[in-house]
Amino acid sequence: MATKNYTVTGMTCGHCEMSVKEEVGDIAGVTEVTADHATGAVSVSGEGFTDEQVAAAIAEAGYELA
Amino acid sequence: MATKNYTVTGMTCGHCEMSVKEEVGDIAGVTEVTADHATGAVSVSGEGFTDEQVAAAIAEAGYELA
Repeated sequence: MATKNYTVTGMTCGHCEMSVKEEVGDIAGVTEVTADHATGAVSVSGEGFTDEQVAAAIAEAGYELA
Repeated sequence: MATKNYTVTGMTCGHCEMSVKEEVGDIAGVTEVTADHATGAVSVSGEGFTDEQVAAAIAEAGYELA
């Protein structure tokens, strides 16, 4: 299992973190997602997922990869 | 029907507005709630609700009356 770290802009609160975690968590192969609105840090663990999928999920949630 | 205006601190995004609208909207007699995170303005329309009920609902949502 691999963990990849991303920086996301636009999260302002815990609800935003939850939105990101939900969308990214729906990607096939993703087993764990953490998100911190204060730093923008999003950590994604699992197998077989791509940066493109993560970027798309984050956009779907309403945010952007930095 | 009366409309009362309040100022709420701590809302940072649209999810926050939604949380406030949901909690305040659950008060008996409330028929409409608007919330704007940019200004903190929350407007509550209906009949028979009290400021105390609005304050409690806003606290329940995780925010505070200014």
